[in-house]
Amino acid sequence: MREILALIMNNQLGKARSKILEQKPVDIAHFLEEVPLEKTLIIFRILPKDVAAEVFTYMSSEQQKYIVGNITDKEIRSILDELFLDDTVDFLEEMPANFVKKVLRSADENTRKLLNQFLNYPENSAGSVMTIEYVDLEKEMTVKQALVHIKKTGVDKETINICYVIDENRKLEGIVSIRKLILSDDDVKLKEIMETKIIYAQTLEDQEEVTDKFRKYDLLYLPVVDKENRLVGIITVDDILDIIEEENTEDFQRMAGISPTEKEYLKTSPFILAKNRLIWLLLLMISATFTGSIIKRFEDLLQAVVILTTFIPMLMNTGGNAGSQSATMIIRGLALGEIRPRDLFKILGKELRVGMIAGIALAGVNMLRLYFLSKVSLVIAAAVCLSLFFIVVLANMVGGALPIIAKRFHVDPAIMASPLISTMVDAVSLMIYFTIATRLLHV
Amino acid sequence: MREILALIMNNQLGKARSKILEQKPVDIAHFLEEVPLEKTLIIFRILPKDVAAEVFTYMSSEQQKYIVGNITDKEIRSILDELFLDDTVDFLEEMPANFVKKVLRSADENTRKLLNQFLNYPENSAGSVMTIEYVDLEKEMTVKQALVHIKKTGVDKETINICYVIDENRKLEGIVSIRKLILSDDDVKLKEIMETKIIYAQTLEDQEEVTDKFRKYDLLYLPVVDKENRLVGIITVDDILDIIEEENTEDFQRMAGISPTEKEYLKTSPFILAKNRLIWLLLLMISATFTGSIIKRFEDLLQAVVILTTFIPMLMNTGGNAGSQSATMIIRGLALGEIRPRDLFKILGKELRVGMIAGIALAGVNMLRLYFLSKVSLVIAAAVCLSLFFIVVLANMVGGALPIIAKRFHVDPAIMASPLISTMVDAVSLMIYFTIATRLLHV
Repeated sequence: MREILALIMNNQLGKARSKILEQKPVDIAHFLEEVPLEKTLIIFRILPKDVAAEVFTYMSSEQQKYIVGNITDKEIRSILDELFLDDTVDFLEEMPANFVKKVLRSADENTRKLLNQFLNYPENSAGSVMTIEYVDLEKEMTVKQALVHIKKTGVDKETINICYVIDENRKLEGIVSIRKLILSDDDVKLKEIMETKIIYAQTLEDQEEVTDKFRKYDLLYLPVVDKENRLVGIITVDDILDIIEEENTEDFQRMAGISPTEKEYLKTSPFILAKNRLIWLLLLMISATFTGSIIKRFEDLLQAVVILTTFIPMLMNTGGNAGSQSATMIIRGLALGEIRPRDLFKILGKELRVGMIAGIALAGVNMLRLYFLSKVSLVIAAAVCLSLFFIVVLANMVGGALPIIAKRFHVDPAIMASPLISTMVDAVSLMIYFTIATRLLHV
Repeated sequence: MREILALIMNNQLGKARSKILEQKPVDIAHFLEEVPLEKTLIIFRILPKDVAAEVFTYMSSEQQKYIVGNITDKEIRSILDELFLDDTVDFLEEMPANFVKKVLRSADENTRKLLNQFLNYPENSAGSVMTIEYVDLEKEMTVKQALVHIKKTGVDKETINICYVIDENRKLEGIVSIRKLILSDDDVKLKEIMETKIIYAQTLEDQEEVTDKFRKYDLLYLPVVDKENRLVGIITVDDILDIIEEENTEDFQRMAGISPTEKEYLKTSPFILAKNRLIWLLLLMISATFTGSIIKRFEDLLQAVVILTTFIPMLMNTGGNAGSQSATMIIRGLALGEIRPRDLFKILGKELRVGMIAGIALAGVNMLRLYFLSKVSLVIAAAVCLSLFFIVVLANMVGGALPIIAKRFHVDPAIMASPLISTMVDAVSLMIYFTIATRLLHV
């Protein structure tokens, strides 16, 4: 790579070009990230048009902005011609308004209309991720006619692996794979071989439902229809891979109390990073003072038996951990569709039992440790271990129930994870602990 | 669905059959899960052979076990004939040894040899997820010859969308898509149109590296070669979708302190669920007592100024939350390849700044609240807020650094998440708090 850069510095562009073209487009895009920004334009311009367009789709928005800002309208147009519509839309969605205008101005009228329509689909809808470059066929065609048609029009399509059979109103009637076409005899009509049990999405459907369909039916492509059931586009599995990772990232972030962001960590400023975390930190900090006020209410108890204070962190942590273990299992199960809200009571029953098993084990270990190793008095050891048992049982049930309840109220279950559950369980844990201690110690 | 069940109860199998066949195989498999186990066999047997085989791949291992245990060797063989090799391997990997034997006994010798070889690939290696049903071509073939060859052999292949060009030693020389074949002229030779910049995997490569390649290069298929670079199989993107979700689930579980399991929550017994969570709960419980011992060391301080105790939960929680926010960002970045271990110092610098911004904001809010709302004495409010600031800064740096350090030592970064970081940060938080309080209060 350094070699290529040296060639460019020495203006040996021809040599640099052939060296670069040994790479895959995504690798060229990564290489451009290491190059000083002002050099990227030179390199970008020596690439063949089709490669340049593909490299462009893999660039960071900063670089895309730089390129678009520094090339002519004619050059923009020639990139647009090579790009699939969904890639153009992806890139425009990240651009500020003046850049979008510049790009739209450079596009021909037809593309401009289409782009405007696509940019109007709600974010994360099937319409916003689909592409329109698919092969359409008619059911009265023979296999041979279909193949001729594909040969004529296929070069501009995102895929020819699956073709779509539509009627005169563009209503989707069937799908037929290129495999079926190749393996069938020339004069068979499409209506005899096309698949009519079609899985499809509607333009306004949420992308999460779309990914569920890909996952469930092991799809590579999914047709998208409008309200009148007319075929308007297809979604391809490579975009679905990206969406799945995005949604997992969102869940990871929400579960840690971070406002979700799609931007890479290293490319985000400390201010933005802090902003995304502060809301929850503040909220949880203030809720935690509630726990402090419970301690205050039992000040006399703690002053009389100071050693009780030393067990507070252990009890709170264990409760928090047990609760977030349950919550994580349920949140993940909901995300994968393995658990449904109607399973609430099954889950409560299960978590009750899990909590009792874990609670007995933890309380047992603790009893041995406290009584034999730390030589704590029996009654205090008993108070701690009894509390531990009840805290773990309760934490498991809270952790199991809250994500389901959130889902029922159409709130993202992922926010019912570790930070929130720990904070809630903390307060209740202390109540249990102090109540049991007061009873047993007769303070 | 109830309707179908009624038809079966009334022995109207023909009608039931055509009703069932309106469904997609995966939906039939789900339907069978709702049916009493003894009825599944009847339904399974009325399905056409190819549909039965596909339905079989979507069944739970319990049901697969039941089916295999109750059908004849001949029936097993006819299912095996229809299954792709990777699906057979998937299913056998979940079966107990005596079932594997029964299945292997039913297979013809060739299949048996292959299956034995596949079952010997290490779990999670490229070899264990690949399939061998791909189309191979030779570079001297013309497009026309290639298409004739595909037509003859394609019906048994998992895909014909990408074909593989190999030499006489089965070494991979190029790949050519069906699209390229269809769009090229009949008498062009494959060597002129095949792609020679090939992305491939080795049989022993870890599936995580394989998924990285799919993600990075937007692949639908990836060829797998052995040590001598001979083509031995291909991996398809639908299996990659499953692997990505599995690995995300593992990360979610590890990050909550749960031993990873692939089994669905609702299908796992409370004992297994408890077992998977207990190791970490125990470990963390015992570590948390260390925090207790710090409190014990400062007993005198707490007895003298009891109100200090009430801020312990808030300080510990905020530190834990800040630390796990950072850790989550870094763990996820590492998993997606956006962050590399060599970025450690960049991360520390960033988290230092994020921690200072968040620390100032939180300490500020807290100061106002304590001094004006709760009427706490100025010196105590100052001790609490100063501690809060240092705790948040430190927690951010610990949370940012530990996943990277884990990765460097080839430990899964995901275990450096919320539970472990909270426990570690707790102890340090208390040390900071008590030290500052002692200094400011002159106790």
